Amino acid sequence: MSIDTAELPDAEGPEDRPAPAGNPGWLSEDELNFVRGRLPVVYVEAVPVRLDGLGQVIEVGLLLRGTPEGEMTRSFVSGRVRYGETLREALFRHLENDLGPMAFPQMPATVVPMQVAEYFPMPGISAYVDARQHAVSLVYVVPVTGTCNPRQDALEVTWMAPSEALAEATLSELPGGRGALLRQALAGVGC
Amino acid sequence: MSIDTAELPDAEGPEDRPAPAGNPGWLSEDELNFVRGRLPVVYVEAVPVRLDGLGQVIEVGLLLRGTPEGEMTRSFVSGRVRYGETLREALFRHLENDLGPMAFPQMPATVVPMQVAEYFPMPGISAYVDARQHAVSLVYVVPVTGTCNPRQDALEVTWMAPSEALAEATLSELPGGRGALLRQALAGVGC
Amino acid sequence: MSIDTAELPDAEGPEDRPAPAGNPGWLSEDELNFVRGRLPVVYVEAVPVRLDGLGQVIEVGLLLRGTPEGEMTRSFVSGRVRYGETLREALFRHLENDLGPMAFPQMPATVVPMQVAEYFPMPGISAYVDARQHAVSLVYVVPVTGTCNPRQDALEVTWMAPSEALAEATLSELPGGRGALLRQALAGVGC
Amino acid sequence: MSIDTAELPDAEGPEDRPAPAGNPGWLSEDELNFVRGRLPVVYVEAVPVRLDGLGQVIEVGLLLRGTPEGEMTRSFVSGRVRYGETLREALFRHLENDLGPMAFPQMPATVVPMQVAEYFPMPGISAYVDARQHAVSLVYVVPVTGTCNPRQDALEVTWMAPSEALAEATLSELPGGRGALLRQALAGVGC
Repeated sequence: MSIDTAELPDAEGPEDRPAPAGNPGWLSEDELNFVRGRLPVVYVEAVPVRLDGLGQVIEVGLLLRGTPEGEMTRSFVSGRVRYGETLREALFRHLENDLGPMAFPQMPATVVPMQVAEYFPMPGISAYVDARQHAVSLVYVVPVTGTCNPRQDALEVTWMAPSEALAEATLSELPGGRGALLRQALAGVGC
Repeated sequence: MSIDTAELPDAEGPEDRPAPAGNPGWLSEDELNFVRGRLPVVYVEAVPVRLDGLGQVIEVGLLLRGTPEGEMTRSFVSGRVRYGETLREALFRHLENDLGPMAFPQMPATVVPMQVAEYFPMPGISAYVDARQHAVSLVYVVPVTGTCNPRQDALEVTWMAPSEALAEATLSELPGGRGALLRQALAGVGC
Repeated sequence: MSIDTAELPDAEGPEDRPAPAGNPGWLSEDELNFVRGRLPVVYVEAVPVRLDGLGQVIEVGLLLRGTPEGEMTRSFVSGRVRYGETLREALFRHLENDLGPMAFPQMPATVVPMQVAEYFPMPGISAYVDARQHAVSLVYVVPVTGTCNPRQDALEVTWMAPSEALAEATLSELPGGRGALLRQALAGVGC
Repeated sequence: MSIDTAELPDAEGPEDRPAPAGNPGWLSEDELNFVRGRLPVVYVEAVPVRLDGLGQVIEVGLLLRGTPEGEMTRSFVSGRVRYGETLREALFRHLENDLGPMAFPQMPATVVPMQVAEYFPMPGISAYVDARQHAVSLVYVVPVTGTCNPRQDALEVTWMAPSEALAEATLSELPGGRGALLRQALAGVGC
């Protein structure tokens, strides 16, 4: 499994869903490219988990995606926050886009994230790299209670035990430094 | 509505439920009184809330209890952690005791609490007072999705908008300094 | 004391400090206006506090600023994160700009904020309003150990006891909904 | 380097410092043994770190201790909270006991811990084991700015880069499951 940083944090190209005409939050490809070189872009990311009856994480969900080059890569639920959109709306939209309408995520009661990740196009500034942009990402751990049917370009959600998700082999499949991010996010829920 | 600090954080007298013979975690009234004067006692407290579809708190639940003296007082879900019991087990047990078996609480994915409250029998050490003991309480905000039917000595769960829960009149009905604690716990979820 | 939402979160006009030629993070006034209407802008805000020897907050610092219209208004340390700049660099830069070089802030060990505030130009979407832009602000409580000499347009840092900072009279002097934000941020440190 | 779970979380035997006569918080060895079998004991633990000018963790401190059996083991700053003592007082006392009076720790502005660890005498209940007791431990990451001169039974504080502290070889030297705890605590500060 190879690593393709160009494909992430999400696969909006330019946007995952058409928006009403005149919506300033929806950007053409040119506009998106322009602002991406001028401002840090706000992202939300979510690590889907399943809990037992006492709230302990028993499974971690990772998305499997194919890149345009035909390679497979793992990722979180992820996407940018549009102009005029709240963090909660963006988080819900991306959860629905990536996990399908029957995932029934338990939306967090607080918008304070579990972790904050800073992605830069140039390596070395932080632990996280995104070739397309400087992104500031608020990372949540989101329990889901329903059935995940990935839409868009994600092929499937792979569920695994926390120990498997934290194994070096899995962490190394997450591009752009997200292996460390997954480790940190799961640490916050005692894994 | 008067304030009776002797009745709280919970109404275990000596224990809320019989335990199997020989269980070292179950204490007789004498033993409980002895250890209460020797060690800080670990508590869990929970503020029940209802969320909208995006995770925003729309209602806050407060328990209404009658004291032995016939007075009414407000409280959280609350109780001590027994020897050999995990925090999650204690939290779940007290949620069930205080809200009934049909409340369907969303147990937190992390045991890191929203707030920590320190109760002392003598006023002035911290903002929180408990005449019976020195208690260290881990405070959670817990979304509930079902129906609450208080058991034990709680008369009812009163649901109110966050703004009403945060009104001075409500906060002052919470004994032992818990008005400030409610304010802090709700601040953590953006209220 | 009046409220002028147009002046905040910060007073960059267009930018608080010249940047090297060709720096894509430094925006002309036109560019800033364009992107502000297209993307949420990442902000950092800091509530300066003084701690006693055990870490308890004993004083809260609020900036007093004069608006171009000659009115006085209270604010936090605040400013946007530039393209290519880390959150820590932005936080440090704005602390130094607003408190002076001798404030000696204790930079947080974690970039996970105490609160996240979402500002919108249109009221009603969230509790926070900023006429200029949609901003997502990461809010920190930052202990300072030195002497504050506000630079730029801030007239002074007013230090007050937490109870005074939380008094209705003070909270109402903070524009754009930041009264609630101050209350929430201080709740996180037990005030 | 061997693992001796009986020696930790701290080396109070029965108490690390004499207390004034009649202090109910100071327990004789018999009393401590009695209550340890009846109630969870409240602990505070601290991972000492050094920060760079922007708040980033650059070094992690681990205590090296000799056990009564002459073996070496790594540990955090750690100890119980006495009756009548606040969490801040206990944290400060144990930091001073374990790091010496010139360590100048930056006490946390909040008592909400970075992690909560639950130790049980019997393995399998949680990830953490303490042969002596059921302990609920509030774990903090504490920046120190001075010089550490361990007192009591600690031989030295070893400073190492975060990557070295997180190496499997180091984590496995921490007894009672504290390797996972160190990983989780450092995750909270972005390591």
